[in-house]
Amino acid sequence: MIKNDLFLRALKGETVDRPPVWMMRQAGRYLPEFRAIREKYDFFTRCQTPELASEITVQPIRRFGMDAAILFSDILVVPQAMNIEVQMKPNFGPYLPSPIRTPKDVEKVIVPDVTIALDYVMQAIKVTKQKLNEEVPLIGFAGSPWTLLCYCVQGQGSKTFDQAKEFCFTQPTAAHALLQKITDTTIAYLKEKAKAGVNAVQVFDSWGGMLSPADYTEFSWNYIQQIIDSLKEEVPVIVFGKGCWFALGKMAKSGAAALGVDWTCSAQNARHFTGGNITLQGNFDPARLLSPPSQIKKMVSQMINEFGKDKYIVNLGHGILPNVPLENAKAFIDAVKEWEAN
Amino acid sequence: MIKNDLFLRALKGETVDRPPVWMMRQAGRYLPEFRAIREKYDFFTRCQTPELASEITVQPIRRFGMDAAILFSDILVVPQAMNIEVQMKPNFGPYLPSPIRTPKDVEKVIVPDVTIALDYVMQAIKVTKQKLNEEVPLIGFAGSPWTLLCYCVQGQGSKTFDQAKEFCFTQPTAAHALLQKITDTTIAYLKEKAKAGVNAVQVFDSWGGMLSPADYTEFSWNYIQQIIDSLKEEVPVIVFGKGCWFALGKMAKSGAAALGVDWTCSAQNARHFTGGNITLQGNFDPARLLSPPSQIKKMVSQMINEFGKDKYIVNLGHGILPNVPLENAKAFIDAVKEWEAN
Repeated sequence: MIKNDLFLRALKGETVDRPPVWMMRQAGRYLPEFRAIREKYDFFTRCQTPELASEITVQPIRRFGMDAAILFSDILVVPQAMNIEVQMKPNFGPYLPSPIRTPKDVEKVIVPDVTIALDYVMQAIKVTKQKLNEEVPLIGFAGSPWTLLCYCVQGQGSKTFDQAKEFCFTQPTAAHALLQKITDTTIAYLKEKAKAGVNAVQVFDSWGGMLSPADYTEFSWNYIQQIIDSLKEEVPVIVFGKGCWFALGKMAKSGAAALGVDWTCSAQNARHFTGGNITLQGNFDPARLLSPPSQIKKMVSQMINEFGKDKYIVNLGHGILPNVPLENAKAFIDAVKEWEAN
Repeated sequence: MIKNDLFLRALKGETVDRPPVWMMRQAGRYLPEFRAIREKYDFFTRCQTPELASEITVQPIRRFGMDAAILFSDILVVPQAMNIEVQMKPNFGPYLPSPIRTPKDVEKVIVPDVTIALDYVMQAIKVTKQKLNEEVPLIGFAGSPWTLLCYCVQGQGSKTFDQAKEFCFTQPTAAHALLQKITDTTIAYLKEKAKAGVNAVQVFDSWGGMLSPADYTEFSWNYIQQIIDSLKEEVPVIVFGKGCWFALGKMAKSGAAALGVDWTCSAQNARHFTGGNITLQGNFDPARLLSPPSQIKKMVSQMINEFGKDKYIVNLGHGILPNVPLENAKAFIDAVKEWEAN
């Protein structure tokens, strides 16, 4: 059905002529057409208006022709739907005025009917699918329960998320109750997204790498595994854990269709840790997109040679930076399309 | 000469009855006696006044009896001595009002005579050695050239140090010139510290883990290696690279006496990556010191069993947090002293 199915074939581990490519945060501030919409509508209006969210989603595809689109949204729409107030402050980022700090705070958190509370996301998916016209697959996403807990407890971004960790380490029962509520909501949310038409889902564990391996298993991985178990029969699941190189072995046996890796984990290490049989996605340093385009092309070609063309999806190791020049983003995408086996 | 030489013996890889213990940032804000001095004197006054710096250095030894003291100072005294203005803003951290962004900026940076520009550090070492009275060894330290470049270019702390990376990736010649000036200054500085009486030095590469393995080699490791080569005959060198698990293999062959590891790298992985023959230091998650003292003691004992008692220095995986209760810090130190082989 999908005309360009490179991405879906890579997720299945099939042999391809070249690896597919997309970029985390490809629908973002580095695009002038994104900034034009951003000037007129605030963050949550963009997320909640299907016409805007779908427009933003297809912008990078029109300009650069990536092999997959990812629905414009935010991981924090989930806690918002769970009765936790989330604001997006300009030049500051997410701000949660009533952070969760006690068992009582956790009790107040609801597991919503996502077909109502997040219906706007499902509508955005339907409109986006029409605009994409079966040209490329559409990815839906969610934050990992741990990463969402980080924001819900800390109340804002942080270098270390100490308060979130303190909550888990001093009130583990309350922490696990919150993580389970987030997990239950996320499973229902991603199932609805699959029904609405996304072709794959990605779980972003942006802050998993702040935990020791033992704490990662307890507070992050066990919940991601629940999500994979509940979703994998319906839609391929990609797990991206930033800084989670130490968990790649476990992740490879989880039933996930692919694993994202960041740029600190070399292709060789990533293949070694995962046993060589699972599709990997990544791992260009987003700051390296500030290098000259000719250098970007060389580095991308080398990266493909190191990961190998099969069971591989070219991507960044984290979201694209707002100050990346358009020609540099183009060089990244073009390098993949121009790649030829040595 | 030193009465408690556990730390020095562990650095030599000798067999010990129990591993030595100290904590990064052990002379810090979690101590009421430190906060009392902090209320009266600003940051650089504390660094530049030998009586104050030495007093702060010995405070945690008096209270908890760690097996090594580390001179109270800051990594940013080095760029300050190189003609780069550094301010320490309350509730903000380091602020450099004239960040380095061009080759011309780099040209203005000087390699100072450290015996003059940083004489106050040498005086602080001498006073501290008197106060320690040969009870425990004294550690001196410096930031890695890459980590110092991060601050000099970014101008302040950052989650990603994008501007520092952009500088390296778009103006590599200027970046290498700056890194070499910092390296030359650091080598002279650490040699003077050794002459003044420190028994070991530690190089803090706090932001090495933000680089890909290839960029780490080019912009961080090659300069750390110069420091090790120049210092190792005079004083044992410990290298701590936060998030630098991917470089541990290279580090193990560098001539460093010991390597610090953070809590994302398990004892098993750290021993595996380093080949099992070099002394390792770490790696308790600082946020885990917020757990109840009884749990801290269990986790420390388990950590020692995992690393093994020999070729091991018990420490945190990063600096102690200001909100750690005193009894929790005490539990950490006591657990090591009470440890017995199974």
